[in-house]
Amino acid sequence: MEGMEPGTVRPGGRTARVRAAVLRAAGDALVEHGFDRLDLADVARRAEVGKTTVYRRWSTTTGLVADLLDDMAEQSSPRTDTGSLDGDLRANARLVVGTLTDPRQGALFKAVIAAATCDDRAAGALRRFYATRIEEWAPCVTRAAERGEVPSGTDAREVIRAVSAPLYYRFLVSGDPLDEPSADRAALAAGAAARAGAYGS
Amino acid sequence: MEGMEPGTVRPGGRTARVRAAVLRAAGDALVEHGFDRLDLADVARRAEVGKTTVYRRWSTTTGLVADLLDDMAEQSSPRTDTGSLDGDLRANARLVVGTLTDPRQGALFKAVIAAATCDDRAAGALRRFYATRIEEWAPCVTRAAERGEVPSGTDAREVIRAVSAPLYYRFLVSGDPLDEPSADRAALAAGAAARAGAYGS
Repeated sequence: MEGMEPGTVRPGGRTARVRAAVLRAAGDALVEHGFDRLDLADVARRAEVGKTTVYRRWSTTTGLVADLLDDMAEQSSPRTDTGSLDGDLRANARLVVGTLTDPRQGALFKAVIAAATCDDRAAGALRRFYATRIEEWAPCVTRAAERGEVPSGTDAREVIRAVSAPLYYRFLVSGDPLDEPSADRAALAAGAAARAGAYGS
Repeated sequence: MEGMEPGTVRPGGRTARVRAAVLRAAGDALVEHGFDRLDLADVARRAEVGKTTVYRRWSTTTGLVADLLDDMAEQSSPRTDTGSLDGDLRANARLVVGTLTDPRQGALFKAVIAAATCDDRAAGALRRFYATRIEEWAPCVTRAAERGEVPSGTDAREVIRAVSAPLYYRFLVSGDPLDEPSADRAALAAGAAARAGAYGS
């Protein structure tokens, strides 16, 4: 969902269209009611797709959330290349803040993260989603190491995680504001710690 | 709950004993079933306290979770003073990891954080809990600034948040392991970023 564009027209035949409609409806239902009240029959109704199709293809609400997360990972936007580590990390941090403060996306994230706290399959899908996003952004750090901006051997994924971590902490835990200054500070701190060798692997 | 000692004998009369029994039972119920299935009558049964007492005093499950968090904040352990910023931050990080990896405490934290994603009163209580913990540890940084270890004007609370953030990110979001090396790295990165002036206020 970071950078996912809702309603994007995608290629594909009927199967792909049905999947897109069902995942869109599942997202809507999660935003409105959260994971606990997610219901396959309700999702089918919202998507205007036969109930049998939904049950056959996704079986359970957890299966549906897992597929939604996989789709969000596929649809999420590519990393930015600004030419400097601080610029790249700032772009990443602002993308995360933009996503988490977007009313629909923010509610969707809260719903799937809450689902993951009590459901292993949702937790696995959430991990895959973040692994994909971290993998997408890690080359910013690898390139910075090649340019000599950070020590060689810096753990690129750990630096990318470090950018997101204080933003998710505000979002889920402390309730402190999520804004552009907090994004920029998260990027700055991760870059400074990386330069100091704190993420040496 | 960070550093809270379950079952600690506390002073107080019948009212305090009833509260302790009910909050202990509420914690047990949350660990077993999560927030969604928290039920005041079930908590009263577990605590061996009259149902009317529980309803009169806590009214709702959200009220009960809010009081549990307030109690956890009151019972949580004082900060460590090792004499150096890196030592203090490491002690803090290890305390957080110890808490989140404790089977009971970890499950309790997941339950209340999940509750906070969909309930404003639980979110408020969660914010108060973390504000108390951050306030407790902030003097580590203020003292480090006095000793000249970090720039004066460093935002002490932000440094403490930065220690916890990557640990909660692993716990709630990425699913990466929470262990002593990840604690030490979180402390090291926060200290390095603070020294580099990333938390200048």
